[in-house]
Amino acid sequence: MAILIDGIGELTTNCATGRLRDAALVLDGEQIAWVGPSRAAPAADERVDVAGRAVLPGWVDSHTHLVFAGDRTAEFEARMSGKPYSAGGIAVTVDATRAATDEQLAANLRRHAEEALRQGTTCLETKTGYGLSVVDEVRSARIAAEVADEVTFLGAHIIPPDSLSYVDLVCGEMLDAVADSVHWADVFCEEGAFDEAQSERVLCAAAARGLGLRVHGNQLGHGPGVQLAVRHGAASVDHCTYLTDADVDALASSDTVATLLPACDLSTRQPLAAARRLLDAGAVVALASNANPGSSYTTSMAFCVATAVLQMRMSVEEAVWAATAGGARALRRDDVGVIRPGARADVQVLEAPSVTHLAYRPGVPLTWAVWQRGVHRMFNYRPSA
Amino acid sequence: MAILIDGIGELTTNCATGRLRDAALVLDGEQIAWVGPSRAAPAADERVDVAGRAVLPGWVDSHTHLVFAGDRTAEFEARMSGKPYSAGGIAVTVDATRAATDEQLAANLRRHAEEALRQGTTCLETKTGYGLSVVDEVRSARIAAEVADEVTFLGAHIIPPDSLSYVDLVCGEMLDAVADSVHWADVFCEEGAFDEAQSERVLCAAAARGLGLRVHGNQLGHGPGVQLAVRHGAASVDHCTYLTDADVDALASSDTVATLLPACDLSTRQPLAAARRLLDAGAVVALASNANPGSSYTTSMAFCVATAVLQMRMSVEEAVWAATAGGARALRRDDVGVIRPGARADVQVLEAPSVTHLAYRPGVPLTWAVWQRGVHRMFNYRPSA
Ligand SMILES: [Zn+2]
Ligand SMILES: [Zn+2]
Repeated sequence: MAILIDGIGELTTNCATGRLRDAALVLDGEQIAWVGPSRAAPAADERVDVAGRAVLPGWVDSHTHLVFAGDRTAEFEARMSGKPYSAGGIAVTVDATRAATDEQLAANLRRHAEEALRQGTTCLETKTGYGLSVVDEVRSARIAAEVADEVTFLGAHIIPPDSLSYVDLVCGEMLDAVADSVHWADVFCEEGAFDEAQSERVLCAAAARGLGLRVHGNQLGHGPGVQLAVRHGAASVDHCTYLTDADVDALASSDTVATLLPACDLSTRQPLAAARRLLDAGAVVALASNANPGSSYTTSMAFCVATAVLQMRMSVEEAVWAATAGGARALRRDDVGVIRPGARADVQVLEAPSVTHLAYRPGVPLTWAVWQRGVHRMFNYRPSA
Repeated sequence: MAILIDGIGELTTNCATGRLRDAALVLDGEQIAWVGPSRAAPAADERVDVAGRAVLPGWVDSHTHLVFAGDRTAEFEARMSGKPYSAGGIAVTVDATRAATDEQLAANLRRHAEEALRQGTTCLETKTGYGLSVVDEVRSARIAAEVADEVTFLGAHIIPPDSLSYVDLVCGEMLDAVADSVHWADVFCEEGAFDEAQSERVLCAAAARGLGLRVHGNQLGHGPGVQLAVRHGAASVDHCTYLTDADVDALASSDTVATLLPACDLSTRQPLAAARRLLDAGAVVALASNANPGSSYTTSMAFCVATAVLQMRMSVEEAVWAATAGGARALRRDDVGVIRPGARADVQVLEAPSVTHLAYRPGVPLTWAVWQRGVHRMFNYRPSA
């Protein structure tokens, strides 16, 4: 069934330069079938007039950790009172995740994915990494695959306190058990987590199994993560809060995307990543939520875009691109994050005439309608009174 | 009709210390009739089980400018590309407001007040100040009074370019014409707007007419606004972005509330106001949105609270108090911003177990239900699919 979305006041496609005025598009099944000026729009089975609102691709959130159980509200409050963030808190979530049933983990993941969808996220990556045993990582991967578009194996999240030869386990039995249900492998390359040599072993083992590579790097200090990611041809290195000039140069001359996580930087009271420096050097920048119960418990890509514009000096175009096409690039996909014939029919409509309002109106929930794979998922804000 | 709200996981009353667990409350007509532990809850005509969610007073947004017409999206984009904020942009909104019909102004105000309500704002102040002629200020005040809880006369917003004796007009004919329909008068005491002597004339004339006083001060630089406000016993001085030690001391030893506007500071790329310094000195701090199309086009009090906690080092309790009871104090009211028998039945329920989530989950729309004057106004997020 073909759906014509007409009356688009401003259309961001990420294909044409700039924003189109008075546009229309046609969704047919799970794909976009047509994009063009409103006056040339073809007939369709159904017509939705969005009355001048802005339309853009659904958000591509390329970095989340949503297979988890338990609560870390108290840790957040302690941090806000001055206690610094440390990776150690992850162990709290590991304990709760291991103790949860499959049904509890799946329900929690679905609830957060639905929450993200209602805010415009139509393509979601999520990771394992709160299991850290063969059985718990395997079931985390299986549950993730039921809900998320992209699943990343993050057995190398932290080294559990009781595990002497954990890197051997991750690179051997755990990777063997999980490899068929995931597309990506990731490593938390940071002081207190995995050092350079350990990270390198994880990346090599994953690459040998045919998995795509991602790296958590340079979050808590200057570290080897960025260089390691570039050297191993990782699709993305995520955080990039502390960068040397050599790190920026390495990213700029590589295909590795720098994925920035501004909600995490704020929630851990770290400096915001240097987006302007990366963009000016020619690096490809993505924005993602890093949704997880420890360092960044938000699913709001709009908050990330607003922060990027207001506080990281990205332009509106750069920030919107980074949260859609940039996320797609970080997942090495070209079928999402764009509006063009043949792309997946993932579209969001804003309760605003322009994407500029995402930064001009921070905090205001602007998601008005969302289609995901051509299925209309919600109209927001129908007040009951 | 009495409504029992039961199953409250965490209740912030702003009366008892801290947050209550397993609480309930009863709304009767426009007032709160009872507050206490769930096990002691009385019977009522209707019972709503909020299933462990957090409940707190509706936001009291004590500073908005929502009687306006026109669009300043382009000015915002220019500012984000490096052009500094100047009060001069206000003239654009004045022209559009004068050109709009009463119906257009009222509809725009209602639309923004509804948007604020859906985000938990149950008590709203708004100002004139985009009319700047007798006829346009009077109709702005009249339209504001139809929608807002508190109306402030801000004829002294900027000096229109064509007006040689504008301060005389504001303090004379304009004040006479508007005084019966407003409760408050305000002056934009800032370089480029009204200087100290002009501001003082406006405040004296307004006080002589029996109006309560408010001041816009110390937004764009160190200025006389704070001292002026304290000296004249203003209920609030708003912005406070640039403060000397003497300003902080003056606020701390006065009844004048320091109303901070973090969304405005971010949207104009100013430093965030020094909340910690004010609180540590003993000043009373309120948070408000400053919703207006120029310097802060958001109605999201939750965004202000999140920013205050994440970036201004206010505790969750301080920020929530400032956005509810603090706003009430800035309006010299004790019937809103609190949950106690006899207070106005303005209550919000969060889609979260704790008010901490307002900062822990920035950008996620957490308003789940709102009662305003005892009337149930919305349950958010009933997805259509
Ligand atoms: Zn992460
Ligand atoms: Zn103002």
